[in-house]
Amino acid sequence: MTTSSAASTTPIRAAIVGYGNLGRSVEKLVRAQPDMELVGIFSRRAELDTDTPVFPAASAADHAADVDVLFLCLGSATDIPEQATGYARHFTTVDTYDNHKLVPDHYAAMGEAARAGGHVAMVSTGWDPGLFSLNRTLADALFPDAQQNTFWGKGLSQGHSDAVRRVAGVKKGVQYTIPSEDAIAEAKAGRGAEITGASAHVRECYVVADEADHAAITEAITTMPDYFAPYSTTVHFITEEEFERDHRGMPHGGHVVTSGDLGGSRSSIEFALELGSNPDFTAASQVAYGRAAARLKASGQTGAFTVLEVAPYLLSPVPLQELIRRDV
Amino acid sequence: MTTSSAASTTPIRAAIVGYGNLGRSVEKLVRAQPDMELVGIFSRRAELDTDTPVFPAASAADHAADVDVLFLCLGSATDIPEQATGYARHFTTVDTYDNHKLVPDHYAAMGEAARAGGHVAMVSTGWDPGLFSLNRTLADALFPDAQQNTFWGKGLSQGHSDAVRRVAGVKKGVQYTIPSEDAIAEAKAGRGAEITGASAHVRECYVVADEADHAAITEAITTMPDYFAPYSTTVHFITEEEFERDHRGMPHGGHVVTSGDLGGSRSSIEFALELGSNPDFTAASQVAYGRAAARLKASGQTGAFTVLEVAPYLLSPVPLQELIRRDV
Repeated sequence: MTTSSAASTTPIRAAIVGYGNLGRSVEKLVRAQPDMELVGIFSRRAELDTDTPVFPAASAADHAADVDVLFLCLGSATDIPEQATGYARHFTTVDTYDNHKLVPDHYAAMGEAARAGGHVAMVSTGWDPGLFSLNRTLADALFPDAQQNTFWGKGLSQGHSDAVRRVAGVKKGVQYTIPSEDAIAEAKAGRGAEITGASAHVRECYVVADEADHAAITEAITTMPDYFAPYSTTVHFITEEEFERDHRGMPHGGHVVTSGDLGGSRSSIEFALELGSNPDFTAASQVAYGRAAARLKASGQTGAFTVLEVAPYLLSPVPLQELIRRDV
Repeated sequence: MTTSSAASTTPIRAAIVGYGNLGRSVEKLVRAQPDMELVGIFSRRAELDTDTPVFPAASAADHAADVDVLFLCLGSATDIPEQATGYARHFTTVDTYDNHKLVPDHYAAMGEAARAGGHVAMVSTGWDPGLFSLNRTLADALFPDAQQNTFWGKGLSQGHSDAVRRVAGVKKGVQYTIPSEDAIAEAKAGRGAEITGASAHVRECYVVADEADHAAITEAITTMPDYFAPYSTTVHFITEEEFERDHRGMPHGGHVVTSGDLGGSRSSIEFALELGSNPDFTAASQVAYGRAAARLKASGQTGAFTVLEVAPYLLSPVPLQELIRRDV
């Protein structure tokens, strides 16, 4: 046991940079933690609609001594690559960087910055990457030859919704990814090897646009390489009123299904999420890993950590001995 | 990162004490690991039906220098309480001690013995306690006020089957515990607080007995205090042939369902197991945590660890950098 097992009696002093959907979710969840206090929000905007103290992002480093953990609630497309290492030099940080292919590079860059500053950088928390990553590693480790599939949805995909909205003529648009129930059953039965992203999911788009543009928009979306081309994609055109009424929530979810042979018997493991709000749940994971980051830092650790490197008890405000009594 | 991230090039030398169902499952799974070799089995019996080298349990300590991790495949009722600390003084151990209420005492005793010997004692692996414990702590940590329910089954319960077989007139008998689907749906919706063990599960017994005894056996089983009295219990009488054909497997499984509010939105997390063989899957968890125990010992750690204290990457034979690339 390398870190303190009891919850500290001194609250963890938390701060947030970025105040979009994720930042607002982190704000309300930090306030609900028994062992955290919210010091402030760093923003490039002068005024935010909050009663939390707001400081200019440019002067964040001046507040470093008052902050135990900084939640990086920044976009993965450009903000995290451009700004995260700068914060990691001055703060123990937690991010939800979600570009899977570039996580190893991000981990390396954040590790270097965090070590230089003597801090911990917890990278790619959230749920995928994040809790799904943890379950993929855990479940795969149990089988000599695991069959593993990840399914997403039903849920709104921000990246695909952005892609829809970039199509000429689209006024408003969202995209939902929906897992195929047949594919999940096949995966549990160990026949998941043939399941590809394209056969495991269907994509449904809801778009507001002038009628004259409908055919061209449908063609542009369904043939868009990487995003839509190999998938079964349906485009629904709806009124602006319908859009506002039915498509403003941010539900999401998914399943990690792992199965395999254990020397003559088959078993399966399923980890499933049903999320009323994607940013709220992503924030819940980020906040719990923020607690772990602050504890790792307090115990003298430095450098970057993924969720794979964090002992589960570090996520909880409940002391280890009580967790053992209650949960083991 | 406190421990080596790359899989060692030297195999982990494993040994087993106890050769019942669990010991046999551990044996076949250790052989299937890319990074373990099976040194031998310690047994009180002179001859075992295996080609693994067998040594007398009484002389186990003489082999301590040849063993990196010792799998304690011993019963929780008497063997673990009587023998486990003795092994922990000489070996890094992994057990599946499953008496939930006494885990804190076991953890304390094993910690003392392991520290005295300079070893690691990994306690209460398996799936409940074990993987379910991990998921209870993890999921609870995400919600300010979580609602959490654990459901067991469909599965064969050894303890309840033993109770059935002790009833006068029962020639052969098994008991399956089956979770109520309604109860699982209620838990996901956050209405799990009212669910008790009795309302969450039904019990089904399959019994071979003379027809003259059927009525008395049904009465004795369904009214048995603690084991059956508060549950919805059904007793099926079958032929010996049916029993041998349909009720010799050891399936089990269960669900940990956690839900809660995240400041205006609700989310739920489900961790579900469907196990073709309870001992095979318990062994799969024990073997993976054995890998973690050997790594923790190799990194200089000593003392007792629960599954709550183990970083997930330590369970996998795949090096950390590759796990980050593949799973995060």
